[in-house]
Amino acid sequence: MRDVSIIGIGQTPVREHWDKSLRQLAVEALLAALKDAHVDEVDAIYVGNMLSGELTGQEHLGALLADQLGMNGIAAMKVEAACGAGGSAIHAGYLGIAAGQYRRVAVVGVEKMTDLWNGNVAAGLAMAADGEYEAANGISFVGLNALIMRRYMYEYDLVEEDFAPFALNAHTNAVNNPNAMFRKAVTLDQIRKSKKVADPISLFDASPVCDGAAALILSRRENLNGNSARAIEIAASTIATDTLALHDRQDPLWLRAVELSSIKAYAQAGITPQDIDLFELHDAFSIIAPMSLEAAGFARRGTGTYLARDGAIAIDGKLPISTMGGLKARGHPIGASGVYQAVEAVQQLRGEADKNQVQNARLAMTQSLGGVAATAVTHILRGKG
Amino acid sequence: MRDVSIIGIGQTPVREHWDKSLRQLAVEALLAALKDAHVDEVDAIYVGNMLSGELTGQEHLGALLADQLGMNGIAAMKVEAACGAGGSAIHAGYLGIAAGQYRRVAVVGVEKMTDLWNGNVAAGLAMAADGEYEAANGISFVGLNALIMRRYMYEYDLVEEDFAPFALNAHTNAVNNPNAMFRKAVTLDQIRKSKKVADPISLFDASPVCDGAAALILSRRENLNGNSARAIEIAASTIATDTLALHDRQDPLWLRAVELSSIKAYAQAGITPQDIDLFELHDAFSIIAPMSLEAAGFARRGTGTYLARDGAIAIDGKLPISTMGGLKARGHPIGASGVYQAVEAVQQLRGEADKNQVQNARLAMTQSLGGVAATAVTHILRGKG
Repeated sequence: MRDVSIIGIGQTPVREHWDKSLRQLAVEALLAALKDAHVDEVDAIYVGNMLSGELTGQEHLGALLADQLGMNGIAAMKVEAACGAGGSAIHAGYLGIAAGQYRRVAVVGVEKMTDLWNGNVAAGLAMAADGEYEAANGISFVGLNALIMRRYMYEYDLVEEDFAPFALNAHTNAVNNPNAMFRKAVTLDQIRKSKKVADPISLFDASPVCDGAAALILSRRENLNGNSARAIEIAASTIATDTLALHDRQDPLWLRAVELSSIKAYAQAGITPQDIDLFELHDAFSIIAPMSLEAAGFARRGTGTYLARDGAIAIDGKLPISTMGGLKARGHPIGASGVYQAVEAVQQLRGEADKNQVQNARLAMTQSLGGVAATAVTHILRGKG
Repeated sequence: MRDVSIIGIGQTPVREHWDKSLRQLAVEALLAALKDAHVDEVDAIYVGNMLSGELTGQEHLGALLADQLGMNGIAAMKVEAACGAGGSAIHAGYLGIAAGQYRRVAVVGVEKMTDLWNGNVAAGLAMAADGEYEAANGISFVGLNALIMRRYMYEYDLVEEDFAPFALNAHTNAVNNPNAMFRKAVTLDQIRKSKKVADPISLFDASPVCDGAAALILSRRENLNGNSARAIEIAASTIATDTLALHDRQDPLWLRAVELSSIKAYAQAGITPQDIDLFELHDAFSIIAPMSLEAAGFARRGTGTYLARDGAIAIDGKLPISTMGGLKARGHPIGASGVYQAVEAVQQLRGEADKNQVQNARLAMTQSLGGVAATAVTHILRGKG
């Protein structure tokens, strides 16, 4: 395999961008990434997006964005894996370079969930689950996560408040991230008193509907030119899947795709979980955080919440997570989130995370999930640190 | 680059499959391809599809099909580039193997356009064009192609009847393809008298709305096992783009993405257009056939129809096209068509095309287009011949 590096990052703030279209957001992030990489062209664009057709009435985002960027002619495609689309687009772009087909690739994750052309977001999100069985029987995507959380609490003798430290950590970290959606500090008391969205999931246990775009420029190591000092290596890029429908899982409390993609990623990078300095996990709902920590090898089964309780997930903890706010507080523009995670991990590994800097960060892991972790995309990024 | 070969093919008949769902069609094609390849597992599935969300209410096809195939755990993703989704999925799968990430990959193109959950096909197809400018102003996808055909006729002094030999060739070849949608022989007279769909495009100038799935199994050369005798090499896999909106093109009569991806493909395979033994082009509308022949280097500008008039495109002609019926008569289940083309090219290169066999076929080119060739995906396949 050829070495693949990230040489540029860009992002829009995550907001309800009522004044910007999908293409504007994507181009804004792409131009920022090109500028950051000091390059003015790429050989291919990979677009991570889930719902542009359903919500914006626009498919064919690859050709659209190559064109909008003034680069029509180059290769382009859209990659979709529900909420794991962003991570999957990075994986596809990574392979394009690793194969020797492309010298430089742009990856952009973008999602426009407000100011809709058609449809509704809840119906769109339900398309991440099994349409013929789950959606057809009326369960929403948040409902599926609520079922898991209820069962998890029952099996491991926990209450809703045991999950609050995850939201608190995310919101605390978002305060210092200018691109985060929620920048107002919150208290444990506020989180505990927040209203239910889908019992037992409360408002602070769920990520928001929002718009945003994030972009990366990838390059082969031999083409880094003047960028080698700031280049961040992609040490692993892996995907694994699980049953799409929750009811088909023998063990609904174990995220098998997270486990499989993590194990493959550790092997590809030649490391163990203990080597990871920070973990941008897919905290679309609070319940997914402890389950990801467990399946990725950072906590024993049923003990993921202890890491939050004990402060291990804080910026200065043993395993910082959601260091720029996570999906919960930076926001979760679904197809974009996997790329936001990578952008933030690069900020950390470059030492550019400002007040949220994880000291001596050298290895960062990001994990982009689709559905209830029916798809898990894991990346391990290695800095010079 | 590692050598990548196609070791298995599978397809469903193209029909209005009112009794089969998207997942059934895809699994049927995948199982046939696995059987044909004599393998029972792959490392990853790449799904080419455009409108599953809009028409079937289901995204996340990668995880869905890995699961339905009994292979949950493996890597999976959906690739979209409008009607070029099938070709793009092959490209992505090809890179996965060429990069050394996967040993064996399944690629499936699938589209379900009848028996809809929601939406309508015309609105869905319009998403291949520029939503904010073209679709918003009310032009349909067939309308865009009608504009080009009208201009092409004006510039090159042609009439509707000059395009009829393309439809005749496609329908003639479909008669002997059991998987084709239209198997009844038609006459030039019938084609000439057919009604207009969007003037000057008549019924016989447009491909049908239909359902279908086609699949390939790709493998590295060193992992062919017992399959080497029937393996077909992917000698080139390239993508290029053009402006998404027709009105942005300086020359709307020249398919620049087709030209660029063809040139790159010839270079990658180390051949010239004269070496190509058959060309599965994207005849979604008659007008696209001569324009593809020109941009891909088989005819001078404005003379593409002459190849049809002179019989060069027939099975026993100099450059057979649409040898199993093409998009016009085999049918065009949009995201699947690019994979059908590859399946049919493999049938030709293996010498398994029965009555439609192109004699001594060794090099086949397939071209999968998205929108009005805003995306062009070109593959060159090399047989032992």
